[in-house]
Amino acid sequence: MNYDMIEAAAERANGHIRHTPMVNSPFIDKIAGRKVYIKPECLQHTGSFKARGAWSALSAMDPAVRKSGVMAYSSGNHAQGVAWSAAQHGAPAVILMPADAPQLKRNNTKALGARVVLYDRATEDREEKGLALATDLNLTLVKPYDDPHVIAGQGTVGLEIAAQAAELGIEEADVLVCCGGGGLTSGIALALEQKAPGLRVRPVEPEHFDDVARSLSAGSISRNNRMDGSICDAIVTPQPGDLTFPIMQRLCGPGLSVSDDEALNAMAQAFLRLKLVAEPGGAVALAAALNRKNEISGDAVIVVISGGNVDPMMFSRSLISHADVA
Amino acid sequence: MNYDMIEAAAERANGHIRHTPMVNSPFIDKIAGRKVYIKPECLQHTGSFKARGAWSALSAMDPAVRKSGVMAYSSGNHAQGVAWSAAQHGAPAVILMPADAPQLKRNNTKALGARVVLYDRATEDREEKGLALATDLNLTLVKPYDDPHVIAGQGTVGLEIAAQAAELGIEEADVLVCCGGGGLTSGIALALEQKAPGLRVRPVEPEHFDDVARSLSAGSISRNNRMDGSICDAIVTPQPGDLTFPIMQRLCGPGLSVSDDEALNAMAQAFLRLKLVAEPGGAVALAAALNRKNEISGDAVIVVISGGNVDPMMFSRSLISHADVA
Repeated sequence: MNYDMIEAAAERANGHIRHTPMVNSPFIDKIAGRKVYIKPECLQHTGSFKARGAWSALSAMDPAVRKSGVMAYSSGNHAQGVAWSAAQHGAPAVILMPADAPQLKRNNTKALGARVVLYDRATEDREEKGLALATDLNLTLVKPYDDPHVIAGQGTVGLEIAAQAAELGIEEADVLVCCGGGGLTSGIALALEQKAPGLRVRPVEPEHFDDVARSLSAGSISRNNRMDGSICDAIVTPQPGDLTFPIMQRLCGPGLSVSDDEALNAMAQAFLRLKLVAEPGGAVALAAALNRKNEISGDAVIVVISGGNVDPMMFSRSLISHADVA
Repeated sequence: MNYDMIEAAAERANGHIRHTPMVNSPFIDKIAGRKVYIKPECLQHTGSFKARGAWSALSAMDPAVRKSGVMAYSSGNHAQGVAWSAAQHGAPAVILMPADAPQLKRNNTKALGARVVLYDRATEDREEKGLALATDLNLTLVKPYDDPHVIAGQGTVGLEIAAQAAELGIEEADVLVCCGGGGLTSGIALALEQKAPGLRVRPVEPEHFDDVARSLSAGSISRNNRMDGSICDAIVTPQPGDLTFPIMQRLCGPGLSVSDDEALNAMAQAFLRLKLVAEPGGAVALAAALNRKNEISGDAVIVVISGGNVDPMMFSRSLISHADVA
């Protein structure tokens, strides 16, 4: 895994993956106490940055292997990214989801052209069922973050940030990144190390699910005690990845964390001031910019909104509790 | 008013006005029955295209005149555009608003640095009060659409559409534009006439407030019977402008119109599929693409979302009534 793979991923993505803009608002700057530049990956195909990694992985495959099909374990953004990328490549995709995954996510994944296979969380082993399917159907697994091509694809966000920061004249700043397994965080960090070394990547996680922050601070991989209980489900993972952690250890930190309520508030600010739809897990970096000003340095901060695949009822909740600005 | 003024406006806007992306979604294509490419001006500074026209008008003024101050009559997007542009130019701005304008709009306009002066709709004459203020304070009025520099500024959207359509290989298509007084519609049409003559601009209005469509069809200016009763308040104007109508007559049409409910549905689709916040008046062009497929021609259609300054409760209403996709 190295910088050159990110440049290669960007070349393969050309014409297929959106260059997302960099936006800002004087209202948000005022709350944050500094200039805040926001990179809205919710505007990416499928509504999250995951389309980048999935595109990178599939476009790097041997065409014969790809044609036989790909598989992913996911009920969320990674599933949609892989389904979309497979459809664009004309490859079959099988997505393995728990039987209790929301109907909306199942429908979206199917509508993107994938076959959804359900498993029972209580009685079936996911890896076992996945392995059996992959063997039977000759499918290649696309991992959500611990894969060099996936990390390289997410790293293309970092290439765009470097170019956009240069255009804005920003040479030194913290770059706050919503962090689950660390694919996006480590990819951006590798890109910036090469193209904008004055920009420092800071992973942002939900409170009580800050395995990356704790791992970085301890110097070794630390797990989350549990996986449920956060509204930021898109970025709750058991622990940092084996490939992503050493990159983050070398280049990123310290980590930041925010509460569910702070994430909901950031969603409301993105609605009011940027006209963007962010999901809770996609809003934690913005929430950190708004609520952790003393833990951030510099006159400007760069923030990634990583996704916008949020349930309408959860979105209304953020508006009702946090958008009363009269 | 001519094409060269649009190129000049684009040059003055360089580095100040955002180039908005062009986005799409397979889900929206499926509903619309053709490819739909969406130009989200809700991502422009101040949340609507109005920042373009206001920037153009102020940047074209004699610096001494500008320094003395500008004025606008508006409680909405034009007010925010003028306030923002004035602040960026270091010029004072006075915005005349009805005393019953929503507190949110007053606060936003003030927060952007403008002085808000209220008048009583029942007892005071707006033009009279405005004229007195302008004379006393030596302010220059910035009209919302019937001004060549404002039209030229809105026309920069058309330059971007022409370039983006060329990149997508689209040579012939309808371009659906949310239409009030016609500044955005006529500006885009003038730009496309020069840069992409195969693209035809179609104004889209709220049902029962389709003064532009009726005027185009009659060949002479026709007024709306009333000004209240639509949720698409941002694009309800008494009649087409004296400058904008002849341009629209030469280049645009036929007009389309959509119901409030269709606008709310389009807002929900923009939320679900594009992760964008559209206001009702800003969503009518998308609503036409989704609901008037037999009145549109071609394999692809281009749609402008003109703004996203929507009250949280109105937005929740669109989600509750139209985002139930389970």
